[in-house]
Amino acid sequence: MNTIEWTPAGLCLLDQRVLPAEEVYRTYTTYEAVAEAIRSMVVRGAPAIGVAAAFGIALGVQSSVAAGENLPAAFERICQTLAATRPTAVNLFWAIDRMRRKFEQAVADRLAGDELAQALVAEAQAIQAEDVAVCRQIGRHGAALVPDGATVLTHCNAGALATAGYGTALGVIRAAVEAGKQVAVYADETRPFLQGARLTAWELMRDGIPVTLICDNMAGHFMKLGRISCVVVGADRIAANGDTANKIGTYMVAALAHRHRLPFYVAAPISTFDLTLETGAGIPIEDRAAQEVTHIGSHCIAPPNVAVANPAFDVTPHELITAIITERGVAYPPFTATLRQLVANA
Amino acid sequence: MNTIEWTPAGLCLLDQRVLPAEEVYRTYTTYEAVAEAIRSMVVRGAPAIGVAAAFGIALGVQSSVAAGENLPAAFERICQTLAATRPTAVNLFWAIDRMRRKFEQAVADRLAGDELAQALVAEAQAIQAEDVAVCRQIGRHGAALVPDGATVLTHCNAGALATAGYGTALGVIRAAVEAGKQVAVYADETRPFLQGARLTAWELMRDGIPVTLICDNMAGHFMKLGRISCVVVGADRIAANGDTANKIGTYMVAALAHRHRLPFYVAAPISTFDLTLETGAGIPIEDRAAQEVTHIGSHCIAPPNVAVANPAFDVTPHELITAIITERGVAYPPFTATLRQLVANA
Repeated sequence: MNTIEWTPAGLCLLDQRVLPAEEVYRTYTTYEAVAEAIRSMVVRGAPAIGVAAAFGIALGVQSSVAAGENLPAAFERICQTLAATRPTAVNLFWAIDRMRRKFEQAVADRLAGDELAQALVAEAQAIQAEDVAVCRQIGRHGAALVPDGATVLTHCNAGALATAGYGTALGVIRAAVEAGKQVAVYADETRPFLQGARLTAWELMRDGIPVTLICDNMAGHFMKLGRISCVVVGADRIAANGDTANKIGTYMVAALAHRHRLPFYVAAPISTFDLTLETGAGIPIEDRAAQEVTHIGSHCIAPPNVAVANPAFDVTPHELITAIITERGVAYPPFTATLRQLVANA
Repeated sequence: MNTIEWTPAGLCLLDQRVLPAEEVYRTYTTYEAVAEAIRSMVVRGAPAIGVAAAFGIALGVQSSVAAGENLPAAFERICQTLAATRPTAVNLFWAIDRMRRKFEQAVADRLAGDELAQALVAEAQAIQAEDVAVCRQIGRHGAALVPDGATVLTHCNAGALATAGYGTALGVIRAAVEAGKQVAVYADETRPFLQGARLTAWELMRDGIPVTLICDNMAGHFMKLGRISCVVVGADRIAANGDTANKIGTYMVAALAHRHRLPFYVAAPISTFDLTLETGAGIPIEDRAAQEVTHIGSHCIAPPNVAVANPAFDVTPHELITAIITERGVAYPPFTATLRQLVANA
């Protein structure tokens, strides 16, 4: 299983909208098509979106080179199109910025034509390869926090499918298992897109890690019964004070974990940090279509024309977060100091 | 719309499994079929289950009379079958007990044959009529607690469909609207059976009460944004100390309301009290089939053979409950004293 694969024919993505019923791979040959794949959640998960956008830029530059277009203008158009796909995950903008720096450096190095396009493909491939390595490091640091015999609750999918491979939150779980610990998982199904039911459960079952699927509204009940040892989730954007945007519902899980004095861990690469924002109040929250809530497949579960709210993310305040697990180590409160330290350690 | 209607042909139930896509009425002529309708959630909601079970008993006695069976033995068999359908809602057992008292009184009054059967039909009809009156009284008491301009969050369906009519939690909202208040509702969709999306949204739209459908995991987010004024839910069983079993997810909503200092109200008839239980720890929690979580209609949303937990209810501890709204008035903490007072006021 490769979530994202660069091939001679174009960018190949595993269509996460139809998993686990179908394992469909789609190949994209234009940056516009990659943008639409990100928008429609063929590919999702903050790190994976960043990797896909980087390859989308590489595809766009290849086409512009072939068409003999004015490259700096074309490059801006390509970046703007990809930046407009989804507003919350900062990894998207981080990847675009990194591709822009590569483009500017290549131009300064007087690269042109196919050579320039190839430099951008290579940069996207580097972002992808680094993401796998970063997830492994996150896993290594996080595994130490998961006790032997633990039952870990996770929300949404911060797994191999959400990254270039291995995963952030699921990377922590995988690394704990690889270290010989007995770990079981409760997976929130994660309405409305059902990433937990469709993706997390599927990934963990393939790896032979025991997983129990629950509805989102059951997490508190199982915490109250003492069935959960800790919570590990991913992140889409982390502000300077540690406030963390992640999939809608994460805040409820964090508040319940706090009530039950359970550790609540966020696992994310440094590329998820947005230190330009003092607090989570500045993080834009994407609203998605009502149909995601009212329909499951073609099955309608609500009255026609019902009013729907569908925010795709929420913000968990830093005081509910026990620690943030990154590739450079584990940050504890006060996050305002420890997150900057991790960045400075580069 | 009649959720439950006694007709010359038998007991007619609105099939709540297929709402809102289809409005299908089914007629039941045996107590076994009524028991299966309760088990499979053709009819659901604590008060409605009680009413349906009472009519089921009446149907069973009619048949036993016609067949010339030994009535006391047949009566016990009928009651046991209906009592075995669902374990959590105490209104079921309350209704069965009330029908048993009627049966014993009728036997003591030397009623027999059709006369005895008719006495039981009349008792079931009385339970039904009283339930509507009780809901109106709950509404009247609760409406005073809902401020003009409020946005009320509710979970599951404690509406006309869950009762003999009008509803408990939705009765409070309806009464507030009838009192001239502007009230809007956020309805949790309520996985896995989707009573909020399918039933609560449908009921409120038919009444012209503004309703916004959200996923269960969004409630905390909207509380944090200041969009919710208070929470009103129904109940399936209330212990002597006020601990309240209600649809799975209610506990998470209550904990979040507490965190955000929002009033959390339970609206329920006295028949939902179980003062034989000191605390909620003694309330049996029904586990239901995995398929309710893994399938929506015929659409499968999870990997084949995934392990699933599907508790149908949870228990909200009394310290998270602002007040319990009943037909005899509003009970405030300490519930151990105030609930007994309400019962004594009979």
